[in-house]
Amino acid sequence: MNPNLWIEEKLDDAYGMRFRVTEVLFTGKSEFQAVDVVRTAGHGVMLLNDGYIMLTERDEFAYHDMIAHVPLFVHPNPKRVLIIGGGDGGTAREVLRHPSVEECVVVEIDSMVVQACRDHIPQTSVSFDDDKVELIIGDGVAYVAETDRTFDVVLVDSTDPIGPAQPLFGEAFYRNVHRVLASDGIVVSQGETPWYRQNVQRELSGILHTVFFRNHVYNFSNLSYPGGLWSFTFASKGLHPLRDVDANRAQQQCFHYYNNDVHWAAFALPTFQQRSVNGVVSSL
Amino acid sequence: MNPNLWIEEKLDDAYGMRFRVTEVLFTGKSEFQAVDVVRTAGHGVMLLNDGYIMLTERDEFAYHDMIAHVPLFVHPNPKRVLIIGGGDGGTAREVLRHPSVEECVVVEIDSMVVQACRDHIPQTSVSFDDDKVELIIGDGVAYVAETDRTFDVVLVDSTDPIGPAQPLFGEAFYRNVHRVLASDGIVVSQGETPWYRQNVQRELSGILHTVFFRNHVYNFSNLSYPGGLWSFTFASKGLHPLRDVDANRAQQQCFHYYNNDVHWAAFALPTFQQRSVNGVVSSL
Repeated sequence: MNPNLWIEEKLDDAYGMRFRVTEVLFTGKSEFQAVDVVRTAGHGVMLLNDGYIMLTERDEFAYHDMIAHVPLFVHPNPKRVLIIGGGDGGTAREVLRHPSVEECVVVEIDSMVVQACRDHIPQTSVSFDDDKVELIIGDGVAYVAETDRTFDVVLVDSTDPIGPAQPLFGEAFYRNVHRVLASDGIVVSQGETPWYRQNVQRELSGILHTVFFRNHVYNFSNLSYPGGLWSFTFASKGLHPLRDVDANRAQQQCFHYYNNDVHWAAFALPTFQQRSVNGVVSSL
Repeated sequence: MNPNLWIEEKLDDAYGMRFRVTEVLFTGKSEFQAVDVVRTAGHGVMLLNDGYIMLTERDEFAYHDMIAHVPLFVHPNPKRVLIIGGGDGGTAREVLRHPSVEECVVVEIDSMVVQACRDHIPQTSVSFDDDKVELIIGDGVAYVAETDRTFDVVLVDSTDPIGPAQPLFGEAFYRNVHRVLASDGIVVSQGETPWYRQNVQRELSGILHTVFFRNHVYNFSNLSYPGGLWSFTFASKGLHPLRDVDANRAQQQCFHYYNNDVHWAAFALPTFQQRSVNGVVSSL
């Protein structure tokens, strides 16, 4: 491959992240979005939706550790987990590390994402071969509006609030998430970056603050999303992300990013971010 | 300016960060390095040494808060502070927020950096006008070898371990830092990123582990350095970065990044980084 082939994600016509590409593995256009899989120099295989980097093999463990283990070690006995999005399989892979989990339902809107990952990113898509995983190709918004099943933990593993993921950032969606959650349920959602998307963090937190008993924001660090510092929202019907975490259970396994100290530290926001969500998150 | 003018910092021919440039404010070549100052779209004015981004006006507060306030709130009464490097003035600006500080000596090797920042980045270089700041244009390695002054806190505000900053990552330098530190002294140093430079973090920590009573690594998040998650090393003759921090004193001021929770959280390393410095840092 030409050594000058680079792929770039731009932000606000002000910033760009570029990765050198050594092989184009897949390029497709589904009814929802463009889907690309490329091999990079130094970051492994990379998945992009509509040109936005979804994951690289090199650093995907950070995102997937932090979306899954924070709520699953706070919930005392997570058995039924629903993942909205998550078509690469990485979130399900981490959910399955919790022995209490009996079923993990993945509702991904775009079958092309799933197939591209099955073909080229077994590191994450391996989870779809597990008997506990039920993969539904469908609209997560419609699913939580219609299903009569209930869940202990819901993970909204979505892209940015543009394109197919836009309704996942709305109040109607979260009222239905509340409906499908058991009485001690938790929902964690991809929450954008405090460096560039404070408005999205504040709006999403405002919705969660209206719908749920308690809600917070927590951070992790990521190589392949602009800003590096990236966030999840945590909302629950009562469980507290720090007081209710089961540190003993968490210590029984070793993860590449997550550990007990990181769990606590993730909720310590820099002052500029604290201020930005002040009034729409619960006190810790 | 042409809307297609971008400046890029590359890493390992695998990754690049690009910022759109709206005005070139200064381009020079000193006896040590190339020095550039540009105005960007969305990130304010940016300083580059040898093409490496040193700071942007938009996010410099994160780095400067975390290099200065972590050690200065751990030391019970910091009066004399030595900054090695720091020619942009941002670290001195944060040091001066501590009322106990009586003198802040800045030893910067490159007068061109100081002058470029005085001319174009008053946001950081304003500190050089303070009577407590003594600016010495000279070699920090030679300074700590020769001076007979002692300091409570030394801040090594250096570039990467290539070019003029290379000796700042060596054992001989840190033996002299130990020599000029008072008996309760602390040294904090720019420590690269765990995502891409684990080898540098481990080598620097190994040197500090040999020379100092205790040493640790702590993290912060930054927009303009590759990897986003970036580290400082903390080494002392005895003071403990968590047990000895004066949280009450820290609460009396408000900083844009630093706060008491962030102080604690900064020392919680992701597992992959913990493992990488295991054996060459003190236990917390």
